[in-house]
Parts: sequence; structure tokens; C-alpha cells
Amino acid sequence: MINVAILGFGTVGGGVAELLEANRDRVAQAAGDRVRVKHILVRRDLPGSRYAELMTRDVGTILNDPEVSVVCEAMGGLDPALPYVRSTLEHGKSVATSNKELIDAHGPELAAIARAHGLSLLFEGSVAGGIPILSTIRDACAHERFDSAVGILNGTCNYVLTRMEREGLSLEEALRQAQENGYAERNPDADVQGHDTARKLAILASLLSGTRVSSDQVPCEGIMGLEAADLRLARALRCSLKLLGVCRLAPTGLSLRTAPYLVPAASPLYGVSDVYNGVLLHGSTLGDLTLCGRGAGRFPTASAVVSDVVQCARNRGRTVECGLTGRDAKLADASAAEVRNLIRVAPSEASLAREVFAGAEEVALDGDPQDSAFVTRPMTERRCGEALAKLSTLRSRIRLLEAGA
Amino acid sequence: MINVAILGFGTVGGGVAELLEANRDRVAQAAGDRVRVKHILVRRDLPGSRYAELMTRDVGTILNDPEVSVVCEAMGGLDPALPYVRSTLEHGKSVATSNKELIDAHGPELAAIARAHGLSLLFEGSVAGGIPILSTIRDACAHERFDSAVGILNGTCNYVLTRMEREGLSLEEALRQAQENGYAERNPDADVQGHDTARKLAILASLLSGTRVSSDQVPCEGIMGLEAADLRLARALRCSLKLLGVCRLAPTGLSLRTAPYLVPAASPLYGVSDVYNGVLLHGSTLGDLTLCGRGAGRFPTASAVVSDVVQCARNRGRTVECGLTGRDAKLADASAAEVRNLIRVAPSEASLAREVFAGAEEVALDGDPQDSAFVTRPMTERRCGEALAKLSTLRSRIRLLEAGA
Ligand SMILES: NC(=O)c1ccc[n+]([C@@H]2O[C@H](COP(=O)([O-])OP(=O)(O)OC[C@H]3O[C@@H](n4cnc5c(N)ncnc54)[C@H](OP(=O)(O)O)[C@@H]3O)[C@@H](O)[C@H]2O)c1
Ligand SMILES: NC(=O)c1ccc[n+]([C@@H]2O[C@H](COP(=O)([O-])OP(=O)(O)OC[C@H]3O[C@@H](n4cnc5c(N)ncnc54)[C@H](OP(=O)(O)O)[C@@H]3O)[C@@H](O)[C@H]2O)c1
Repeated sequence: MINVAILGFGTVGGGVAELLEANRDRVAQAAGDRVRVKHILVRRDLPGSRYAELMTRDVGTILNDPEVSVVCEAMGGLDPALPYVRSTLEHGKSVATSNKELIDAHGPELAAIARAHGLSLLFEGSVAGGIPILSTIRDACAHERFDSAVGILNGTCNYVLTRMEREGLSLEEALRQAQENGYAERNPDADVQGHDTARKLAILASLLSGTRVSSDQVPCEGIMGLEAADLRLARALRCSLKLLGVCRLAPTGLSLRTAPYLVPAASPLYGVSDVYNGVLLHGSTLGDLTLCGRGAGRFPTASAVVSDVVQCARNRGRTVECGLTGRDAKLADASAAEVRNLIRVAPSEASLAREVFAGAEEVALDGDPQDSAFVTRPMTERRCGEALAKLSTLRSRIRLLEAGA
Repeated sequence: MINVAILGFGTVGGGVAELLEANRDRVAQAAGDRVRVKHILVRRDLPGSRYAELMTRDVGTILNDPEVSVVCEAMGGLDPALPYVRSTLEHGKSVATSNKELIDAHGPELAAIARAHGLSLLFEGSVAGGIPILSTIRDACAHERFDSAVGILNGTCNYVLTRMEREGLSLEEALRQAQENGYAERNPDADVQGHDTARKLAILASLLSGTRVSSDQVPCEGIMGLEAADLRLARALRCSLKLLGVCRLAPTGLSLRTAPYLVPAASPLYGVSDVYNGVLLHGSTLGDLTLCGRGAGRFPTASAVVSDVVQCARNRGRTVECGLTGRDAKLADASAAEVRNLIRVAPSEASLAREVFAGAEEVALDGDPQDSAFVTRPMTERRCGEALAKLSTLRSRIRLLEAGA
């Protein structure tokens, strides 16, 4: 019998409890032993819950129960998640968490503690929810050298952009719809400003590079400021518009960026819509490998946490190497990266734009006299920034995702 | 040190040797130990090969070398692959193979021998080449109950259909192109008749159901007989045309089919083109999960074989459960399955078709007076077959893939 404790009984924590019950036999088969929830840490009474008997407000009950071998952290945030996860490991229990904030900020230290105790720290649910992207990198393709990862990692933003594209909504309207449908939080800042994507990208980049990457190293733009006109332009270019996390490994170092991108129709990420997430990996021998699925939600995320529990159970007595290290990342000079861009300005500045972006191609916008739009030649981020500074009516600048990555 | 032997030095076997060398450090890190090729079984001299020193024509050299712990079978076919793999296991060595014919026909027995000896029999390369679909089912999502798998599993057919769609080629022309580009074998029968897809589907279905499914239980149609007109019709319906392997698990049993399908634009498989493969799984908690990548080719397939070697190395002394069992599969009545169909007949039979497929919707074919086409209502396979028997000018009957699966 594998005894599990759950910290936090919200969307994900509750889902883990339910899933372990609903898929009991399958989980037992996968884990090689029955798995049961023995304790659930809460901070307020939840009278009437079927799990009421398992609930405790004292984390010590869990830490000091020698029968508990795996703890699922599903509280979110850093406090008290960080001290609790640390203590959990120090008390000899493996941890499965869906907390990207925690892993982004403290993953390497926690992984080191896990390793030192012969335990595991796993966090499949922290990136792209139900998509088993971390285990693909860590286990299934552990032998592969991946040189890039491009991901649609935030379901809220993808839902908003899909509504803007399909229904011509403004960003504010689409965001309101997302909130009404439960796809966006009351305060969606971390999503729409790109920070959530940057955190997940940093975790992916850490695993790909074997070095320590944190989200504050990721140049980050969100989707605020995008307008319906940008979606129309995307369509005119046979592209979709996606908030991406992009990571490339090159001998010069790691390139990282979170920003809206035009995704060409030939890309496997082009059609990943609504709340779906997708990650495109490129490996030296595998070539392109794409995984798409539900990036969030109670059960997909809980399923990821349970997959970590299963890995812990299968590997009792030894560490499942999670891939986080303390080695410093070698970052490439972001301003030297080459990129093509979609530039949208007021028609009054069309000729200036043509001048500062020499060689840019104008995008035909039939029936839209309010904007002028251009696709630039490949240019460095630095030169693009300098050119943009000369324009006073810039309405948008959106990067193009290059084919094949 | 993990000593590996390779049986067969062709496309895949040679790729395994190269990959183990090129990704040496990464493989060592993944496997927890260095991995080297100690022997390669050949049946003719390959003078000048860098690997000449490792070559042997005597399988006994490999079987009786106690240092060899994993054998990669990359000869293909059943003879001598079957006796060699059996002996290999009986001599206490794990096996990684890309041979779908072998696994389809004899997987359960071989898995039982492996289990009895505490060894592993793994075959990631046998289904969808570089896509880690088997390990996703077996490991990453072992706890998940998948109720369907739909796959584009044959790169040759997908390439042919993509050329027909994009360039309006006939099947024969597209197939010739595929052969010229090395994407189809001189004798492509197993591909275009669907048998290759059926074999891979049987392996997927075995893992999903935990029962023994073999390809002769899969109703199988290939792509022969498809015409450029069918691709035009697909486009008119905003669908792509794909050869699919479809497996559904229901309380009434397992439904299996290999056939060309119309795939709607909303499906994650819609855009999987050229030689790419894709598999769409549906899990009870995960929902839809799609994996796309290279389904064949030297390095993607070798990468899959190497991933199996890594799993064997990581789990020395115990069996990595491959998921094949001897339990009989419970098959649903295939003739009772409901499906919508695209029916194409000569215009002279349009009114008869309208009668026998009551309620079918006519597809507008501007400028194509040579065909009449209809999309039927959902109907059982049996009733559809009866209706088709009444038509004498049937040009094609293509199933529609229902959304959400
Ligand atoms: N929801 C998703 O789709 C999703 C997807 C991927 C990752 N995640 C991650 O999963 C984690 C949990 O997310 P969630 O959506 O499940 O959040 P949630 O619904 O807000 O649940 C968090 C739960 O933790 C409880 N909690 C907080 N501090 C606690 C403490 N000190 N002691 C005991 N319980 C405490 C909260 O209790 P109260 O009810 O009393 O506030 C709440 O029930 C986060 O890190 C999130 O980023 C979520
Ligand atoms: N190629 C792909 O993209 C791909 C993808 C997925 C799976 N697979 C599977 O992988 C397996 C190998 O395919 P492949 O493409 O590598 O075929 P291949 O290029 O024809 O290679 C097979 C090799 O095995 C050798 N061989 C056959 N019988 C032998 C024997 N008795 N003793 C020693 N060597 C023997 C052949 O030798 P000779 O050269 O003397 O004939 C040949 O070199 C097949 O099961 C295939 O279905 C292939």
C-alpha cells in the first residue's frame, strides 16, 4: 500500500483525491501497489465532504506519519508551499507538485534535497497540465538532444486569442468570456502578461539545457494590447496568432522568449486552439515531435500529479531524476537574435515605416484604411527595436515563428 | 557498462549503432551507465564499414556472450527474427525491437518469456517510429484509462495522400513520387493496402485494452482506389483524407478499423501531413492527447529503439512491463458500429443513391459533372453495406471521423 497525503484541497488537490479513487485499479496496476489518500491538509472546515475524515489542519500529522511516502502539493504559491515541501522531503517523503511558481523559483534546491535523501521531486502538472511533456523529455526521450522547444503553454491566453480570431471579439470581450466560462481567473494578470508562460518555459528550458533557468531570465511580453486587427492580419498571412514560449539551445547559448507570435499554417502548433496547449520539440535525431492536449483543468492536471505519484511508487527507494540542476545557464545575447516581424502603424506613417524597415513587404489589407502593415526582413532584435523607436504611431509588432521550429 | 548487440545492420540497425555513438554522453546520462555496441549480426560482409570489427555472422556469439545484456532486433520479418528473439530472452538478455510484424504475431508469447526471466521486451519503434506513443501509454499515462486511439500510422500513405491533395496527383503518380523520394518501398503493398497500419493499430489496441489483439482481427481497407476526386470532395467538406487506424474501447467490446477517413478541420489529426504520423488518444481524465512526429526513417526509428535500450538499462534486474498479455480480446460487433459516410456515384445513379441513403446530404461539386456525392446520416456498417450493394456505379465510400475522437 502506498499512502499519499495531499496539501491543499482546491481544484487540483480535490481532483487528485477523486482520480485516485475513480481510477483505483488502473492506478494500482500502474504503481505496482494500491495507492490511497491517507491525509488531506486543509486550512478551513469543509463539512459534508466525503473526504472529511482524512482532513487535518496540522501539517505535522502528515510529516510525522511514517506510512506516508508521497505528498502531493496542490496549494500553490510559495508560502507555505516552500517550507512544507522542504520539510516533506526532509521527513523522507517524495513530492509531486503542480506548482510552477515553486519549481520556477526553488526547483533546483528542492531537487537537491530530494536527491540527497534518495527521494523524488516531480512536477509534471506544473507545465502544460495533462500533457506528459516533462516525462517525455526526462524518460521517454531521455537519450535525445533537444535543441528547441516552442510551446502554447497558457490555456487562458489561447482561449482568448481563439475567440478574438473566430468571433472578431476585442481582447477585453474575449477575456470576459473566458472568465464567465471559468477559463480565466478573476485576476488574470499572470496569464495575460505572459508570466505564467514564462515560468513554464523556464522549467522546460531547465530540463532541455540541464542548467538552471528561471523565469526572470525570460524576456516576456503578454497579449495585452493585441487588437482584433492583429488577428485579421494574421489570417491574411495564413497564420494563427499564439502566445508562445520559445527556447532554443545553440552553441552560443540559450535563447528564451515569451511573446505573441504569428504561427504559419505549416506549423504543428497552428491549429492548437481554445484551452488546448501544445509543445513542439525538436530533437537531433527525432526531428519534430509535438504533443497537444489539455493544459489545465481539474482532471488533466490531477492526472499529471497522479502520474508523478505512480513514478514515485514505481521507484521507491531511489530518485527519479527530475532534470533540475544548479548549474548556471549560459544565455545567448537576446538582442542579437534574428527575427521577422509584422509591424502595424497608422497609414500616415506608412512611408516612414517603409524607410526604417527597408525591404519590408506591405500586407494588403483590403477594406481596412485605418492601418498599414508590413512584414520585415529577418533582422536582429536590436535593430528592430531601434527602428521601432523611430515610429510614433506603432500599433503592434508581432514576431513570426520561423518554420521548422 | 551496458553491452548491446544489434541483429541486422540495415536502415534501423545501422541507425542504432550511429545514434549510440553520436549521442553517447546523453545516452550514458539517460541510462545511468555507458552504453556500447559490442556485436552486430550480419549475413554478408560489409567491407569498409567503421563497425566491421563488431560484426559477426554467428548469432551464437551474441547469445553466449554474458556481457551482452540488451539485444536490438532490426532484421524485420519473422524468420529468423522470431527464433533469435526467443533465444535471446532465454539466454537472459532483454530485447528492443522495431519489428511490428513480430510483435503483432508473437508479442504476447515473447513478453511472457521476458517476464518469466525478469527481462524486458520493448518495441517502441514498431509503432509510429519516433513518436514515444507506447511509453506514453505504458509509463507516463499508465494510470489513465484510454477509451480510444486514432492514428495516422503509415508515413508512406500519408505522403501519398498529401501529394494527391496538394498537387492533384493520381494515386499512381503520388506513389511513384514517394518511391523516388525513398518514402515508399519498391513493393508498397503492405503500406497501401493498410496491413502495416493494421499491425500498428493491433499493438496499440493490445496496450489500451490489456488484451491480445492481432492485426487479423482488424477490418482493413487501404488507400488503393482513392482518386483525385475524393481529395477534392474532402476539401469541399473542409476535411482532409487520411488512412487511419481507429480503436475504441466500450463496454460492448473493442472496435477496430483501418480505412481511409475524412478528418474534420477541428481534429488534431487534420493537419498531420507528408511523412508525419500522429496519434490521438482519449483518456477518461486527460481528455484528448495528441502526439505527432516522424513515423519512420533511420534516426527517428533508431531513436525509439535506443529509448528502449535506455529503459532496459535503467531497470536492470526487473521487467519493464510492456503491456502485452495473452488475455483474449472482447471484440464488439463491427457491423453494428455507426458511421457517417461520403458516397460517390455516377450522376446516373444519383437518384437511386438518394433513395437508398435516405436523408443523405448532397455535396455541391461545382464544375464536376462526372460525379454525384452524398454524406449519409449516421448508420450502421451493416445497413451501409446493404445500401451500397444496391448501387452499381459506386466510385467511393469514405467514412467520416466523428469529432472528439
Ligand atoms: N487549476 C488548474 O487548472 C491548474 C493547472 C496547472 C497547475 N495548477 C497549479 O496547481 C496549484 C493549485 O491550483 P488550484 O487551481 O488547485 O488552486 P485552488 O483551487 O485555489 O486550490 C488551492 C487550495 O489550497 C488551499 N490552501 C492554500 N494554502 C493552504 C494552507 N496553508 N493550508 C492548507 N490549504 C491551503 C486552498 O484553501 P482555501 O480553499 O481555504 O483557499 C485551496 O483549497 C497551483 O500551483 C496552480 O498554479 C493549477
Ligand atoms: N525503416 C524504417 O523507417 C522503419 C520504421 C519503423 C520500423 N521499421 C522496422 O524495423 C525493422 C528493420 O527495418 P529496416 O528498414 O532497417 O530494414 P532493412 O534496411 O532491410 O534492414 C534489415 C537488415 O537486416 C539484415 N538481415 C536480415 N536477415 C538477417 C539475418 N538472418 N542475419 C543477419 N542480418 C539479417 C538485412 O541484411 P541484408 O542487407 O543482407 O539484406 C538488412 O541489413 C523492420 O521490422 C521494419 O518493419 C523500420
